Amino acid sequence: MRESEIIDLFLRHLKRQGELPLGDDAGALRLGEKWLVATNDMLVRKTDVPDIMTPEQVGFKAVTMNVSDIASMGARPIGFLFSLGIPGDLDSDYLEGVARGIGKALDFYGLPVLSADTNEADDLIIDGIALGLAERLLTRSGAKPGELVCVTGDIGRALAGYLVWKNGLEVDDAVRKPLYEKFLEPRARVREGIALSKVASSAIDISDGLAKELHLLAEMSGVGIEVRAESLPIGKGVEEVAGLLGLDPVEVALASGEEFELVFTVSPELVESIDFEFSIIGRVTGGKGVYLVDEGGKRVMPRLGWEHLTEFQMKILYS
Amino acid sequence: MRESEIIDLFLRHLKRQGELPLGDDAGALRLGEKWLVATNDMLVRKTDVPDIMTPEQVGFKAVTMNVSDIASMGARPIGFLFSLGIPGDLDSDYLEGVARGIGKALDFYGLPVLSADTNEADDLIIDGIALGLAERLLTRSGAKPGELVCVTGDIGRALAGYLVWKNGLEVDDAVRKPLYEKFLEPRARVREGIALSKVASSAIDISDGLAKELHLLAEMSGVGIEVRAESLPIGKGVEEVAGLLGLDPVEVALASGEEFELVFTVSPELVESIDFEFSIIGRVTGGKGVYLVDEGGKRVMPRLGWEHLTEFQMKILYS
Repeated sequence: MRESEIIDLFLRHLKRQGELPLGDDAGALRLGEKWLVATNDMLVRKTDVPDIMTPEQVGFKAVTMNVSDIASMGARPIGFLFSLGIPGDLDSDYLEGVARGIGKALDFYGLPVLSADTNEADDLIIDGIALGLAERLLTRSGAKPGELVCVTGDIGRALAGYLVWKNGLEVDDAVRKPLYEKFLEPRARVREGIALSKVASSAIDISDGLAKELHLLAEMSGVGIEVRAESLPIGKGVEEVAGLLGLDPVEVALASGEEFELVFTVSPELVESIDFEFSIIGRVTGGKGVYLVDEGGKRVMPRLGWEHLTEFQMKILYS
Repeated sequence: MRESEIIDLFLRHLKRQGELPLGDDAGALRLGEKWLVATNDMLVRKTDVPDIMTPEQVGFKAVTMNVSDIASMGARPIGFLFSLGIPGDLDSDYLEGVARGIGKALDFYGLPVLSADTNEADDLIIDGIALGLAERLLTRSGAKPGELVCVTGDIGRALAGYLVWKNGLEVDDAVRKPLYEKFLEPRARVREGIALSKVASSAIDISDGLAKELHLLAEMSGVGIEVRAESLPIGKGVEEVAGLLGLDPVEVALASGEEFELVFTVSPELVESIDFEFSIIGRVTGGKGVYLVDEGGKRVMPRLGWEHLTEFQMKILYS
């Protein structure tokens, strides 16, 4: 079964949902004046962890990917929980590394661990859960025509780093380092998410790739989006790696997943008040669909991203 | 590595904990006047699911075991989340059954699902997460000398049902039915937990076996506990099954895990005000240790329960 079929199957049986229907980065419940935000994301070693990743990086990332979902809802993270599936033959040094990584991430994000559970399983599994509180909720459905589409930080380095590793590309350390940093040690945009809760109309984090997130945002908001290729903040080293592999750096940037940057929409009046680094990459329009505008004109943005990454990689790796 | 070694390893790296240190049924954070309570519990098909259990029962139980941990903290459950690990070859009817079971349990407990995540994994894994709110928190550390030790419902049927199935015992339907009901379809004591939050001094749910829970309660409260064997509310059919296998029904009742009954302590003055069915099984004393009192006198209660179940079963099955 495909993931989308599995999700449909469950949705048929899950009639009771929170005040916010399933489909956002996290779920939410009203608690008095505030929103309690909760999310969970499972990491399976076999499918989600490249060999090059240290156990400490694995543990840190299990926290980051959940904290990022809380941040993208405009919430302040308040607690973390995790369940472990541990194979009988996993060596204790590896497990200690995972524990150290989780501990460091909790320090980094200033979060307490509220509950933990360990079990025997066939593969190493870390199911992370993060909770947060928001004054005002940012969802994927609030974008309105006339607003600006923005993104924090830069994009493309996670996939470019993966490509360097996967293809054994020989690149300078100065090129590899920032790519590997993003590929192996991404960080969630907590401060930015909290700040955006005051001004943005919608937000989503880049888990699966900017192109896929933009399509989701446009569909859930019932709007169109136009992005200018030249405005994309393509990360340092992405162009070089794309060049070595004969790829379009814009496509690498649009397909790059697990960046944990925040994509958000904001009115032209409020954009001035944002006091962290970000890029305006396009605008929200009436109608529907996501378009990419470059010298060649305007075309539908390909739905590049994680679900399509396999095909995309096939194209990259075997063409 | 043993489970206790794994837990120690993680505790060394998890310095940041909630307002309630790890070690209770659930974690807790102060939210204004209330406590936010959160727990997670992973179910792995290979180790946690007997073949006789239907997929619907599996889904229902994944909710129940988490809701029970919320109830034992004296909290009202407010939301559920889950992560699935799904093997590629799992048939869709099985998965549909699990979804139906989760949906039915959410209806039964009146809970919304806040977030769900699906992944590919080698074995079917359901990591359930429940959230709750408490006015006053029930922990494992509040028992005081002079109080009564009580338990909701009855005990022993879950293990007796397991023994009937495991040994292929031929028993009347009238015996098997209540045993299988508890073994395969246990329910969490939500109403009781909320009511107890007003009067009890401590509580714990029976996940691993009454004996093990009593030892935990005594240790974490720094008290002793004396239980009268004749006061234990041993469930219907437990005696018969124990007899067929040459076992002591009291031992079966003390070792029976996943009962999801609540064990609690309460002062003699407040016990009168409790308006649901429960049994007074003993009392809290000074000193330390858990003792079982029967015609033979007073002896240390063996630490029967889930962690020791394997040995206990070995004794049962191969003696």
